[in-house]
Amino acid sequence: MATEALSNSKIKIYVLMVLIFLMYLASAEKYEPTWESIDSRPLPSWYDESKLGIFVHWGVFSVPSYGSEWFWHNWKISKVAGIELFMLDNYKPDFTYADFAKDYSAEFFSADEWARLFKSSGARYIVFVSKHHEGYSNYPSKYAFSWNSVDVGPQRDIVGELADAVRSGTDMHFGLYHSQYEWFNPLWLQDKADNFTTQDFVKFKTLPEWYEIVNKYKPDIVWSDGDWEATDEYWQAKEFIAWLYNDSPVKDKVVINDRWGYGIGCQHGGFYTCGDRYNPGHLVTHKWENAMTIDKYSWGYRRNARLSDYLSMDQLIETFVKTVSCGGNMLLNVGPRSDGIIDPLMQERLQQMGQWMNRNGEAIYGTRPWTYQNDTVNPNVWYTNKTTNGVTVVYAISLVWPSNGSLYLASPFPSVSTTVVSLLGYDGKLSWTPAKPKGLTITLPKLAPSEIPGQWAWVFKLEGLIKQKRKSPFQMPKFNVNKPAHPHYWPDVSYN
Amino acid sequence: MATEALSNSKIKIYVLMVLIFLMYLASAEKYEPTWESIDSRPLPSWYDESKLGIFVHWGVFSVPSYGSEWFWHNWKISKVAGIELFMLDNYKPDFTYADFAKDYSAEFFSADEWARLFKSSGARYIVFVSKHHEGYSNYPSKYAFSWNSVDVGPQRDIVGELADAVRSGTDMHFGLYHSQYEWFNPLWLQDKADNFTTQDFVKFKTLPEWYEIVNKYKPDIVWSDGDWEATDEYWQAKEFIAWLYNDSPVKDKVVINDRWGYGIGCQHGGFYTCGDRYNPGHLVTHKWENAMTIDKYSWGYRRNARLSDYLSMDQLIETFVKTVSCGGNMLLNVGPRSDGIIDPLMQERLQQMGQWMNRNGEAIYGTRPWTYQNDTVNPNVWYTNKTTNGVTVVYAISLVWPSNGSLYLASPFPSVSTTVVSLLGYDGKLSWTPAKPKGLTITLPKLAPSEIPGQWAWVFKLEGLIKQKRKSPFQMPKFNVNKPAHPHYWPDVSYN
Amino acid sequence: MATEALSNSKIKIYVLMVLIFLMYLASAEKYEPTWESIDSRPLPSWYDESKLGIFVHWGVFSVPSYGSEWFWHNWKISKVAGIELFMLDNYKPDFTYADFAKDYSAEFFSADEWARLFKSSGARYIVFVSKHHEGYSNYPSKYAFSWNSVDVGPQRDIVGELADAVRSGTDMHFGLYHSQYEWFNPLWLQDKADNFTTQDFVKFKTLPEWYEIVNKYKPDIVWSDGDWEATDEYWQAKEFIAWLYNDSPVKDKVVINDRWGYGIGCQHGGFYTCGDRYNPGHLVTHKWENAMTIDKYSWGYRRNARLSDYLSMDQLIETFVKTVSCGGNMLLNVGPRSDGIIDPLMQERLQQMGQWMNRNGEAIYGTRPWTYQNDTVNPNVWYTNKTTNGVTVVYAISLVWPSNGSLYLASPFPSVSTTVVSLLGYDGKLSWTPAKPKGLTITLPKLAPSEIPGQWAWVFKLEGLIKQKRKSPFQMPKFNVNKPAHPHYWPDVSYN
Amino acid sequence: MATEALSNSKIKIYVLMVLIFLMYLASAEKYEPTWESIDSRPLPSWYDESKLGIFVHWGVFSVPSYGSEWFWHNWKISKVAGIELFMLDNYKPDFTYADFAKDYSAEFFSADEWARLFKSSGARYIVFVSKHHEGYSNYPSKYAFSWNSVDVGPQRDIVGELADAVRSGTDMHFGLYHSQYEWFNPLWLQDKADNFTTQDFVKFKTLPEWYEIVNKYKPDIVWSDGDWEATDEYWQAKEFIAWLYNDSPVKDKVVINDRWGYGIGCQHGGFYTCGDRYNPGHLVTHKWENAMTIDKYSWGYRRNARLSDYLSMDQLIETFVKTVSCGGNMLLNVGPRSDGIIDPLMQERLQQMGQWMNRNGEAIYGTRPWTYQNDTVNPNVWYTNKTTNGVTVVYAISLVWPSNGSLYLASPFPSVSTTVVSLLGYDGKLSWTPAKPKGLTITLPKLAPSEIPGQWAWVFKLEGLIKQKRKSPFQMPKFNVNKPAHPHYWPDVSYN
Repeated sequence: MATEALSNSKIKIYVLMVLIFLMYLASAEKYEPTWESIDSRPLPSWYDESKLGIFVHWGVFSVPSYGSEWFWHNWKISKVAGIELFMLDNYKPDFTYADFAKDYSAEFFSADEWARLFKSSGARYIVFVSKHHEGYSNYPSKYAFSWNSVDVGPQRDIVGELADAVRSGTDMHFGLYHSQYEWFNPLWLQDKADNFTTQDFVKFKTLPEWYEIVNKYKPDIVWSDGDWEATDEYWQAKEFIAWLYNDSPVKDKVVINDRWGYGIGCQHGGFYTCGDRYNPGHLVTHKWENAMTIDKYSWGYRRNARLSDYLSMDQLIETFVKTVSCGGNMLLNVGPRSDGIIDPLMQERLQQMGQWMNRNGEAIYGTRPWTYQNDTVNPNVWYTNKTTNGVTVVYAISLVWPSNGSLYLASPFPSVSTTVVSLLGYDGKLSWTPAKPKGLTITLPKLAPSEIPGQWAWVFKLEGLIKQKRKSPFQMPKFNVNKPAHPHYWPDVSYN
Repeated sequence: MATEALSNSKIKIYVLMVLIFLMYLASAEKYEPTWESIDSRPLPSWYDESKLGIFVHWGVFSVPSYGSEWFWHNWKISKVAGIELFMLDNYKPDFTYADFAKDYSAEFFSADEWARLFKSSGARYIVFVSKHHEGYSNYPSKYAFSWNSVDVGPQRDIVGELADAVRSGTDMHFGLYHSQYEWFNPLWLQDKADNFTTQDFVKFKTLPEWYEIVNKYKPDIVWSDGDWEATDEYWQAKEFIAWLYNDSPVKDKVVINDRWGYGIGCQHGGFYTCGDRYNPGHLVTHKWENAMTIDKYSWGYRRNARLSDYLSMDQLIETFVKTVSCGGNMLLNVGPRSDGIIDPLMQERLQQMGQWMNRNGEAIYGTRPWTYQNDTVNPNVWYTNKTTNGVTVVYAISLVWPSNGSLYLASPFPSVSTTVVSLLGYDGKLSWTPAKPKGLTITLPKLAPSEIPGQWAWVFKLEGLIKQKRKSPFQMPKFNVNKPAHPHYWPDVSYN
Repeated sequence: MATEALSNSKIKIYVLMVLIFLMYLASAEKYEPTWESIDSRPLPSWYDESKLGIFVHWGVFSVPSYGSEWFWHNWKISKVAGIELFMLDNYKPDFTYADFAKDYSAEFFSADEWARLFKSSGARYIVFVSKHHEGYSNYPSKYAFSWNSVDVGPQRDIVGELADAVRSGTDMHFGLYHSQYEWFNPLWLQDKADNFTTQDFVKFKTLPEWYEIVNKYKPDIVWSDGDWEATDEYWQAKEFIAWLYNDSPVKDKVVINDRWGYGIGCQHGGFYTCGDRYNPGHLVTHKWENAMTIDKYSWGYRRNARLSDYLSMDQLIETFVKTVSCGGNMLLNVGPRSDGIIDPLMQERLQQMGQWMNRNGEAIYGTRPWTYQNDTVNPNVWYTNKTTNGVTVVYAISLVWPSNGSLYLASPFPSVSTTVVSLLGYDGKLSWTPAKPKGLTITLPKLAPSEIPGQWAWVFKLEGLIKQKRKSPFQMPKFNVNKPAHPHYWPDVSYN
Repeated sequence: MATEALSNSKIKIYVLMVLIFLMYLASAEKYEPTWESIDSRPLPSWYDESKLGIFVHWGVFSVPSYGSEWFWHNWKISKVAGIELFMLDNYKPDFTYADFAKDYSAEFFSADEWARLFKSSGARYIVFVSKHHEGYSNYPSKYAFSWNSVDVGPQRDIVGELADAVRSGTDMHFGLYHSQYEWFNPLWLQDKADNFTTQDFVKFKTLPEWYEIVNKYKPDIVWSDGDWEATDEYWQAKEFIAWLYNDSPVKDKVVINDRWGYGIGCQHGGFYTCGDRYNPGHLVTHKWENAMTIDKYSWGYRRNARLSDYLSMDQLIETFVKTVSCGGNMLLNVGPRSDGIIDPLMQERLQQMGQWMNRNGEAIYGTRPWTYQNDTVNPNVWYTNKTTNGVTVVYAISLVWPSNGSLYLASPFPSVSTTVVSLLGYDGKLSWTPAKPKGLTITLPKLAPSEIPGQWAWVFKLEGLIKQKRKSPFQMPKFNVNKPAHPHYWPDVSYN
């Protein structure tokens, strides 16, 4: 009947109105400056899918390029003997840290060349240090007159050039690292001396600069650091993040990390970074990032780094595979030289990462942690998986090529009728046999050296596995991150 | 009657109470942030009595020490050809102004030695540049991280050292010059671009630093500059001065100048400076100061200054005598070298000033402008006078020693019975005769060169003159100071 | 008869006496300053047996480290646009080349560390630049006051430190490179202007320094360069060499090269170097050396070298194998940075060379060119051979690992009964079959990646071959080396 | 008679022929390399007539400009504590002396300006340091590659520019100072270690440079120094001087000094300089020179010289008058700054010298020592005299202007009838009266300050004196010059 038809039409209109109203509500809903609200925001998916990012530490510390990017701190506050001696041996007595800035020359810096190099590694985002704890900003900060890359040193807006190059020349996301504290800023030192009952430093420096870099450079990642000596209250972190999520020009796609105040790391924010080089080796249920470096001992360039101080490709790939398998992204750091050149060995590492990714990226990008991370029997194998249109593929990444001609995997549950095994980079299927009491044994093809698909790790693609659940319920990761006092310096790394 | 007596007593008590109350009120009365109120404060008398001060321009500009202390401005904003050429010829292309700071070495700077030298000139106060328009502060400003004399360059608190030396080693007053604007501070440039509708620069930089230097160094003189591009409203000058007069640690003895915003110079504040090298040549009824330099062309040191660029002693004494006679103080500027040495020729000038003052100071310190400044007939003679215990002495300062053996003065009104004439630095009285139609003629003694009391100008002391009033009523000085856009650079000086 | 017996005894004694006399004559015989005499001296065998040496270019050119070690020449004489621009962009206008010396800092230079690194490459000698064409000496030359490594720059006797480290810490031979001419030495320029009719430069500089370095540092290799603009007569080269061979402290073991004057290269002296990167690809019957660099474009360090500018390990091994096979030694050059660090990538290349040599050195050290150098059919295979106690072993070095599972060699002549084939770095013998019409086919073992003995090239050791002569008589190599005017700059290298 | 006439003519012709032959002989006669022969050459008269010369010490020592021009020696050999401290405080540990050369910038150096300034002092010659003991030459020496003013530092031929400016712009004579030894030249150190049995340094460096500068710059004065550690035999000094006198391009007018080897000073050569600042105060019968400095303590510029370290005009004029009166010339030294500016105070001193010379030069130029030098009674008076066309004028130079109105002179022998007294710079004659027992008393005119002819010293011209001989015979000056080991450093000067 007409009334019914009308009624239907009306209902439709009502439903539509209600929907519009709900959308309006949704759109009008704003994040509150509380961790509960902030933590409720879903992580933009591009970040998790990217898996690999490039971290770049560049600044005045790249001039002495000795010890680490904590040079100033280690010289004047920690009074590290080696640093003091280096200064005594090589500089005049009243040389100040600021005097280094003059030689931050950047004469060979080409943002386009960097962008191409980073892209060639397979990375999908970069995080650039806009300002480190030294307080020197790599862009013309209105709040750092005469202590930024336009006023002294390069005379260039490094952040701006790099943002443009990354955006115009690649499809990578552009992120910014920014240190909250500045070791020697007198306002910071005063607030600290006042036991943080004053907030002059935050008002005069930190907050104005946060807003400045977000508005000016629109970073997709806001990577905070240097937070740990004061609370998120002092930093007014929650207020800033709420603005970032609600009103900033990057509110829809921005991703933040977790370094927003004492006790906040590994607890709140966007992805977790916890400590530097965080790589727990088991599944972490919150998205996390392993920020690590090619130079084992420093984020900034060290002129005197020896070959043995750099991670080998074996170590890099192992770290990467483990990280991705356990749910993390890897943020691989390079420290350019003060003249703008990235050390050829680092270039080689990045390009070799890219060679590996070209062949094996399918097992990395867009994947998720699988039921198992590490094979329950074969410690050299780590898993990822990906479900597309309801079809799940499992990737077993083996850090070694077994010398006995076969690879045993205990964790997968194969089906003789459906399971198909292949090797990324190799044409054709591999034969396999069910193993006892579980898993499968893959027969490796006999290959000449030139036929082996790459080096460092090999990916076995397992299709048509029987879906399974873990026997034991999920274990929440219990990690107790003991943040070192100065997390960047001389970390206790052992890569044997 | 008892009641009346009582009443009288009571009245006395009431009167007393009222007086006390009024005194309380008076003491409690505070200067308002209005020019009317500020201008009502009497000038502390020490300032007028001092007559001679030393001005010191030292900063990063002392490193290139070329052109003038406006080097940066002339290079980058005015684009003065000579400065651009100097940079092209002598520095690498991407040399920044901040790069000069490294060589602001001050290795020979001794505050005690400076204080002794300044004192030896006969000066009774000094005004030191705590920060010039370049924004670099000669003390560890909390608001100029990495752009101050502790963070880069000397690594010393220059202002603090000099304040201590002046106070502990001499009886001179210590004053501070401070520039309100900073040519290249991005916050200033932004406020300016905003047509001064924003005040970020004032809030982030100018005001915090004003309070900082007053609280920290307690200057007896607060010498503002760099004010002219914005109004006193923008600078919040009146509020700051009210605090200075009411609540600052120097409220009782501080003296300020008049450079507190566009249109304020020569109109409001403490003493007037009007333009640089202001020396009108007639009486000014408001206390004023002639800020001038030994180097005719620059306040900061100029390495390439030739001998002919420096004022001769004749010129210096003439300028000084004229200034004092007309009611001004002279603020004599020296520009030290970047290594802390004051050029020997400047040392010589200062010491020769002191020699002159040792002999003739009686005619200078504590004097007041007389009825006449310049003799009505003899243009080489300028007058001062001083009244002590009701007795007035007039000093006729002659810039030449007449070759005809007698000095004619038209302005004084002598009395044969009371007038006594003497020559400072010479024992015995001089004979004189009344002159027609007025004045007197002094017979000069015949003296060997070694007996002449000094050089450059000679003071004839006239005691027992008949008091006189000017025939014509006082003429208020009508001065129309056309402030040059950049008052410090290439002033139109002619000293022939 | 008795007399005869006696006579016999006598004869024996006479013969003995004559022999002794002849030996005395021989030992007393001295080399004459003629090429004929000089060329008659046998090459000390250690040199040929060593095969691999490390060349080190370090000097003031390592400070700009731009373009190449010919920086000064290219800037001021060739006026290469890129170099002129680099100076214009980065230095003040009146910057001189000598000004660079101040920053030749060498603060991280450790002769011991270098010696260990060079040794780790498998090299058996090093050649260090004691003085390049810039005239700056890396030791305290008595004839280069204020233009040597003790007077300006490192303040160290670099040559002395390195000689000590090499001798005390390794078994490598220590050699010295020395440039005869100096581009800008005014005495040289005068002699040149005089059409070499004067020899002031040789007398004041070149000869005194030759004697100085030989007497002081006793080098096993005297590697002359910078000779080509003047004749051996001008240089008095033959006289110096005669002294070197007859009377110098290194007369018994010293080896020299061939760069001793215009037209002498490739014709006279010790081993031939001919042009830089000389690598003819066929047997050369006179001992020769391929002096080449890891950085394709420069002998001195280039800060802006990109990864792609360095030879890959494949290229390095190929060059080396070809060189040794054809009778040459390879002198592999590295250019350290001015701070004394050898770029990590170069370190990696050297260490990888060492890895290869550890496994395959048997086919290199002490070998001789075989009947064939390059396999007559398989272009990827190069041969060496070694005869010990009459037993000859042939080494077939294959630059690729055939993907078809077998390696065909056409040049050897195998015998089913005696020929044994093995693979260096692999236990066990390889099976082979005679091939038609000649040669043999080796069956490669099936190996997992981890079992493959190394990378880049594999050595197949052939024992028990049938001895053969080349069918065609030996072809003397016809090489026509067109020496470039400036052999070090922008060589026309193509490594595709 | 005819025959006699003929005979006379013949005789005349013979005499003429003999004379021509003798002249030829004389012209052909050459100075021998013996002191006897060298000392026999008459001093070209221009030198004695000139009286005042300007000495200029400029070099790498002008960069540290601390202590004195003996900086390098005092730092590294004498190890003067103050110099070592200065280096420790202001430079990096491995700073070498050669590193200073880079900052010998000379950007403001104008040879024309210098020449005008020197000329304005009244000087009639200059002596410029072509090379000091540091070995750095201020011209492109062919024997000092990379250690001269073209290769490092100014990049200019300083000697050449100054020679041109002096010759084209003034009528002054141009002379060159050159140091024989070089503290740190390794060849010198070796010869010294060999006890001067070797002469490599002389052959490689000293002699070639002597010939080079004379041939190239044709100096009128050859001023040797740095001779005292070795004999004239070692230096081959006599041979060089013989060439200079016989065959050099300046053989006719050149003047040399006396510093040609141990024991030669004050004994042989041209004019005597004996020790630095030699000023014996009595007549010396051999022409001598008082080489002295405005800065009492250094010949090179000292940045930290205070006003009190400079000679006052009174001291300068006194020294000059005494020097000329006793037969010497005064060589007044200035040390320019490394940027090429001569300190304004030195400029003032030079110009004031010129003012004095303009008025009183008549009593200086071309004069000779008189019978008396210092007045026998009045110690403030020194004499010179000059005979023109047989008329002798005596000049009494009084260092003070007597305050009693009259000047008493004991040494002259006046005649009432002929003696006329005047005052240079004052019109009219002065009255005088004979004095008892001898001499005369001059009545000084009464003058206003502006009428006094100048300052510092006044010249009374005495005409028509009675000629006299000294009563006692001439006393040869007995001077025993104890040459200090390092004659230039911290001389024991006392000017009270």
